[in-house]
Amino acid sequence: MQPILLTPGPLTTSERTRSAMLSDWGSWDSEFNRLTASVCADLLEIAGGGRTHACVPLQGSGTFAVEAALGTFVPRDGKVLVPSNGAYADRIIRILQALGREASVIEHREDEPVDVGRVAAALISDPDITHVALVHCETGTGVLNSLDKLARVVADHGRALVVDAMSSFAALAIDVSNTPIDVLIAASGKCLEGVPGMGFVIASTASLSHASGNCHSLALDLHDQWSYLQRTGQWRYTPPTHVVAALRSAIDQFVEEGGQPARGRRYRMQCMELVSGMRRLGFKTLLPDDVQSPIIVTFLAPDHPAYSFPELYRRVRDSGFILYPGKLTKIDTFRIGCIGAITVNDISRAVVAVSDALDAMGIQLGAAA
Amino acid sequence: MQPILLTPGPLTTSERTRSAMLSDWGSWDSEFNRLTASVCADLLEIAGGGRTHACVPLQGSGTFAVEAALGTFVPRDGKVLVPSNGAYADRIIRILQALGREASVIEHREDEPVDVGRVAAALISDPDITHVALVHCETGTGVLNSLDKLARVVADHGRALVVDAMSSFAALAIDVSNTPIDVLIAASGKCLEGVPGMGFVIASTASLSHASGNCHSLALDLHDQWSYLQRTGQWRYTPPTHVVAALRSAIDQFVEEGGQPARGRRYRMQCMELVSGMRRLGFKTLLPDDVQSPIIVTFLAPDHPAYSFPELYRRVRDSGFILYPGKLTKIDTFRIGCIGAITVNDISRAVVAVSDALDAMGIQLGAAA
Repeated sequence: MQPILLTPGPLTTSERTRSAMLSDWGSWDSEFNRLTASVCADLLEIAGGGRTHACVPLQGSGTFAVEAALGTFVPRDGKVLVPSNGAYADRIIRILQALGREASVIEHREDEPVDVGRVAAALISDPDITHVALVHCETGTGVLNSLDKLARVVADHGRALVVDAMSSFAALAIDVSNTPIDVLIAASGKCLEGVPGMGFVIASTASLSHASGNCHSLALDLHDQWSYLQRTGQWRYTPPTHVVAALRSAIDQFVEEGGQPARGRRYRMQCMELVSGMRRLGFKTLLPDDVQSPIIVTFLAPDHPAYSFPELYRRVRDSGFILYPGKLTKIDTFRIGCIGAITVNDISRAVVAVSDALDAMGIQLGAAA
Repeated sequence: MQPILLTPGPLTTSERTRSAMLSDWGSWDSEFNRLTASVCADLLEIAGGGRTHACVPLQGSGTFAVEAALGTFVPRDGKVLVPSNGAYADRIIRILQALGREASVIEHREDEPVDVGRVAAALISDPDITHVALVHCETGTGVLNSLDKLARVVADHGRALVVDAMSSFAALAIDVSNTPIDVLIAASGKCLEGVPGMGFVIASTASLSHASGNCHSLALDLHDQWSYLQRTGQWRYTPPTHVVAALRSAIDQFVEEGGQPARGRRYRMQCMELVSGMRRLGFKTLLPDDVQSPIIVTFLAPDHPAYSFPELYRRVRDSGFILYPGKLTKIDTFRIGCIGAITVNDISRAVVAVSDALDAMGIQLGAAA
């Protein structure tokens, strides 16, 4: 049996999604062009951007789409404010450095959400800032940032907002017709429950129309990709045809499930089952519940001499579940994802597998208060 | 029934290759790390680079890998000589422009192979040239360039050679232990008969060890990808797990077929069947046979009032075969690929489909001399 991936993507997909990859598609053929168009139209609708935005797909992982968005929408003399509370905001800073775009960073602790007041103060004090780049759900820890409030502050101060919604898109409510977001970035292999291999950017057509010539790269130039797609119905370079077909099927299943509200509800139930089950075993979460996203949960490593993550990982894997290592530099942690084509029962069984592994390792944790 | 793709990639894959995508893989799991390591080791061996080179995989299409190679291996003050005889060399020039790397172009006609003497003369006359970027098989037309001779000239003049072997790798003999090639670029969805979604670069470890800090991009930095892979066994950013699994299966089938000699032989037979069959119908090839690669063939559009490519395409598609449009700006042409998990019989049936389409369109071509 295949192990269940309790990771933030690649995640467990449905058999129906994977079976959509059993055909080959010609990248120039009108049938594939229709597939691309329908996927882009649906992604745009999920984001609420039908009247104001366009969807530009991109080959590669989510990080490729993040770099493409920063390179395409931030002019070479732009300056980006990055409120950072984790690994994915740090990656945005590394990208901006590689691109030679100026960045200004507001550092936060990794267990606190981005502070709206500090962002407002930075925008007031530094008129050179043209863009704010925000990670919606920081997968490094699972902390959820207040997208709506931050978006209003950025818009009130007349700056453009770029949102890395990699691990929140389709699971948490994001509506660009109500929330002022210029550029929204996500990928196929996350909460849409497709397979990994393509990213996409939902960008306002106003931003797109001003983005010609900004990009540092040909392959990552989203303006060029958008223009070509509009003109021909095709991707500029060979698309990951099977990944696109799997995403088409995954979106069908997302709609059948009831769209974002239903998917978000299922993930929240899976998250609650995970957190309550792990607390019963004596584990502690890094984050307080009010900033915990229903995407991925960071647990503190037990303070017990017999504990080792590699051993826990191996034993739980033998029971059919793949855990995820922690990403904090200063505290020993591990992560468990709540997303993917799984059920609350799968989470219950995973907690049992963790419990069995602890027993086998001779670890008895005091139950949490 | 699925149509057979007579295109230069994505191409028709085997059912076994597509079925390899029916599992999910954790990108951090040791099982997937072993998959990546085995794919890279085999690609390196196919290229003959085991002692001197390393294989660096990259998310995205082949063009992403070409841009990554140019950005990673050409220093910012480098200068690249590009002998151009088609669309893919022109794309290299566009990439170099986007990256701000200096380029010097030797223009050729699209139906002539790159002239070794002109390359040698350019290297002698311009000492600023640090690299030569060559397209091995120019898919825009199907013309084959003399890789061995050109590589020796470049090495004799002490320059580095970057080869776009996108549509030749695994079909034509390329051995970096005999032919001095510093950087060789190809992708999953071409003659290895995998699905599209990843490229790879076979680079000399000497080149790699000097490439730190060159790249204009974070996502496309092959030095960073290589270092991380060496350190962790993992891709830096989410890998296209299902595409990698399909490539593993495709390489197994490549080895079972008899490796490059057998695959090249099958493609040559498919190409001969295609060219002789189409000539029987009265079509003319753009290229003389001695520079024609066994990858893709460009045919001149018939000079007949009833001919239209869209109609030919539609009719042949209805018979189960996908043709490919031409890529020449000045002459009306179309292309038919000879590659993929197909047989000589499939090509024979495709020629019959073209013949039937001509009949239905009321086109009678005089048989060629």
